[in-house]
Amino acid sequence: MPKKTYNNEYRPQNKRREAPEQDVIRGKNPVLEALHSGRTLNKVLAAAGQEAGFLRQVRQLCRKNSVPYLEMERAKLDAVYPGHRGVVALCAPFAYASLEDILAQAIEKGEPPLLVVLAGVEDPHNLGAVLRTAEGIGAHGVIIAKHGAAPVNETVVQVAAGAAEYMPVARVSSIAVTLDNLKKQGVWVCGTRMEQADTLWQADLTVPLAVVMGSEGKGLPKLVADKCDFFVKIPMRGKINSFNVSASCAMILGEVLRQRSQKRS
Amino acid sequence: MPKKTYNNEYRPQNKRREAPEQDVIRGKNPVLEALHSGRTLNKVLAAAGQEAGFLRQVRQLCRKNSVPYLEMERAKLDAVYPGHRGVVALCAPFAYASLEDILAQAIEKGEPPLLVVLAGVEDPHNLGAVLRTAEGIGAHGVIIAKHGAAPVNETVVQVAAGAAEYMPVARVSSIAVTLDNLKKQGVWVCGTRMEQADTLWQADLTVPLAVVMGSEGKGLPKLVADKCDFFVKIPMRGKINSFNVSASCAMILGEVLRQRSQKRS
Repeated sequence: MPKKTYNNEYRPQNKRREAPEQDVIRGKNPVLEALHSGRTLNKVLAAAGQEAGFLRQVRQLCRKNSVPYLEMERAKLDAVYPGHRGVVALCAPFAYASLEDILAQAIEKGEPPLLVVLAGVEDPHNLGAVLRTAEGIGAHGVIIAKHGAAPVNETVVQVAAGAAEYMPVARVSSIAVTLDNLKKQGVWVCGTRMEQADTLWQADLTVPLAVVMGSEGKGLPKLVADKCDFFVKIPMRGKINSFNVSASCAMILGEVLRQRSQKRS
Repeated sequence: MPKKTYNNEYRPQNKRREAPEQDVIRGKNPVLEALHSGRTLNKVLAAAGQEAGFLRQVRQLCRKNSVPYLEMERAKLDAVYPGHRGVVALCAPFAYASLEDILAQAIEKGEPPLLVVLAGVEDPHNLGAVLRTAEGIGAHGVIIAKHGAAPVNETVVQVAAGAAEYMPVARVSSIAVTLDNLKKQGVWVCGTRMEQADTLWQADLTVPLAVVMGSEGKGLPKLVADKCDFFVKIPMRGKINSFNVSASCAMILGEVLRQRSQKRS
């Protein structure tokens, strides 16, 4: 007996007996969207006794996508997935990429790397919107901080409308150290701010590039701004004094695409 | 007596006895944001007995902005503004502009008109985001449809983050008729679609311009597409097949700004 106790103590949190880590998508619309997006789902669980049309729809989508579907008593679902809102889908947690993966992908495609670095963007809607725009424009990866930033969660995946499946996202401990690392590998680091910056279209954005976006309220943290090779700004002609992060990002990436397309042709 | 009844019947819905129409902003964050934005508020009503720090904050902001502030019993607030979430702000309803106002403003500024026309954009978040970007870029107005489109509501004003105060929005019965009207006044109508279109930077966007954006799912309605003088597309280099409406709009308006800035200099 003492031996067993000893063994248990040293087995890290009884890992072997735990279910594998899974993301839980809760609620009718998010689950339907996950099914429509073709995201790989491990299982869909629905509370029995709901509107028959809805349950039929979920069942059919599950069959189409070969996702195991299970109806169970509401009380049971309550116990396992509190806040389930009638239906949950289980899926593998978001798989983050490494910086090396991202750069390797650019090399493989024979394109100068194009990365978006989010320094302190906390709103999952903004992260989702940036992922979607970055994927559509053909960027190679998005870099976010491990701490104090929105991780890739349900909301992000939903707002990204499919793009989270394709866009590699690297989560790093320190944005500043990562920028140093990128610079060593020949990537230019372009910051965004309103003063002491070139207008967007004066800068050469055809070089290997990491575009660093700060949080809306505070801009770039000083430590991060110090790492930037140059800064660009989008001139503002109205009365408000800032664009939304995802709108700024769309304008900058659009300009990168323009410059690179015209250089190629 | 009969005379009075007769009069009442013809008085449109007893208008004189009604309170003036007001928009109601509900909930802590929306009310605080409305107070911070400096939007003209008629009154703020808070349920008594809430967290003292929050009430003090609201009271101070009201005093600073000269907005009448009233604390009342929760039951009373429940009766008048159901779903109040603790605090409500009353303000004048959003004042729509006319197409003439918008064009006049462009002439006054001595700039070629730049309008954004939303054909079938139903999501208030997208409308709010477009308002913010359009205002920041210096567009002269946004045109939305009266029916089947998001009106300027609380959510829109909130997402627009102050821009709804400055950006004239015209609400028209028919987008197609409005486009005809604009064309008669020398404005070029530029549609957006993925096929049979120039890439964004091949088109001349320095002319008087109305950019027409369709809904995400369906694109431009045929009736509207038929009115377009030319089409532009943003080339897509990723795996997803569409950008979010507000991201497309940001990229297009960014390119308009670039072309117009470079023409000027």
